[in-house]
Amino acid sequence: MRVSVYFTPGELAASELAGRTVVVIDVLRATSTLVEALANGARSVFPAQTTDDAVRLAQALGREDVLLCGERRSLKIPGFDLGNSPLEFTAERVAGKVLVMATTNGTPALMACAGAKQVLVASLLNLGAVVQELAAAGEDVEILCAGRERRFALEDALCAGMLALGLRERLERAPRTNDAAAVAMSLARRASGRMERWLGRSAAGRQLKEIGLADDVAYCAAVDRHTVVPRLKERQVSL
Amino acid sequence: MRVSVYFTPGELAASELAGRTVVVIDVLRATSTLVEALANGARSVFPAQTTDDAVRLAQALGREDVLLCGERRSLKIPGFDLGNSPLEFTAERVAGKVLVMATTNGTPALMACAGAKQVLVASLLNLGAVVQELAAAGEDVEILCAGRERRFALEDALCAGMLALGLRERLERAPRTNDAAAVAMSLARRASGRMERWLGRSAAGRQLKEIGLADDVAYCAAVDRHTVVPRLKERQVSL
Repeated sequence: MRVSVYFTPGELAASELAGRTVVVIDVLRATSTLVEALANGARSVFPAQTTDDAVRLAQALGREDVLLCGERRSLKIPGFDLGNSPLEFTAERVAGKVLVMATTNGTPALMACAGAKQVLVASLLNLGAVVQELAAAGEDVEILCAGRERRFALEDALCAGMLALGLRERLERAPRTNDAAAVAMSLARRASGRMERWLGRSAAGRQLKEIGLADDVAYCAAVDRHTVVPRLKERQVSL
Repeated sequence: MRVSVYFTPGELAASELAGRTVVVIDVLRATSTLVEALANGARSVFPAQTTDDAVRLAQALGREDVLLCGERRSLKIPGFDLGNSPLEFTAERVAGKVLVMATTNGTPALMACAGAKQVLVASLLNLGAVVQELAAAGEDVEILCAGRERRFALEDALCAGMLALGLRERLERAPRTNDAAAVAMSLARRASGRMERWLGRSAAGRQLKEIGLADDVAYCAAVDRHTVVPRLKERQVSL
């Protein structure tokens, strides 16, 4: 088994996805929010590339149970029902709903993986469940960090490293890894047990705290809050 | 002062380069070889995007003192004068010559930075000299790793981290850093004094050893072998 990490979406071209199992990570906050929404009973989430795409898709779906969600510069998009804070996606708000969601990094990264054999959604919130599923399947895994505006993001690298470490612990034979996976695992070992502090140090974490969203950082740092493994299939993420 | 690291060329767009000081790193092997060539008396090196571009440029220059250099899949390009091994670029071969060079990662990364205010070429071989020059200038620095086929490469991240650490040690006020610089510095601290071993572990290092080029890995791991600081100006790299 081979476990590869890509710190930015640009490192994994669409042409390289055929037949692959890809795990997409955007800890602060899109994949954390997706996990939270589906764990709280949302029926599915349509990721969107842009705000306009989200609005058009919601109109096309045209149903009463659709919620428009997403952020620009970390804040809820004006006129949308929900932003990108996992704390907003309570069972009360999202149970039974179909969500359309546009975020800066996470939802475009997910959509870019549409050509893969399977696309799983990971965050710290559902880390153990994703590890379990990947270990049971035993196939090569491509772990794709959404990063931040095309660039390296510490929190995604940490989560990728924890995922790779978790796989290594569960497998009988240590998986082969690429350079990025080795670095991510080393980071994850150092941060072990102190996720909230490390997330708070990242550029995304600091920015969220600056605009009053420190609770989001703390929430997204909790490992294994949920056991769901969302998957992208036919443009929708669901369980 | 701000020190930012980019692990792959895709993270720094051409439009973001205006007015910036960029340092380009490709430890295995293009920037190591450039440093070696210029330290050994080459007059200048024209980086080329492709093999064909290199051939055309050499023909256009049309001078007897031009050498065609470069690799594909780590091996010398058939018909070229030299490959991409620093050990080939002896004073005997390159002194007084103009080089045209096409490599897989390093020379395209250099050319992509042409719009910056200044572009410096760094490797472990000339690390201290680059640190000294950047610290004296005191301006913000963008450290760009050439990586490997658009992807993260351990050896470039290590060199970037050593550069950032070196700057931090020399400056009175610790520079601000991005997430990637923080991770690179942490890697560099761990690898300190064991560069050859770490380079040997990287995917590029292992591949070079497999094809019989272990001596290149060892050579490129030597810190501060030279004190030159090559710069890209008007399509040429020179001192």
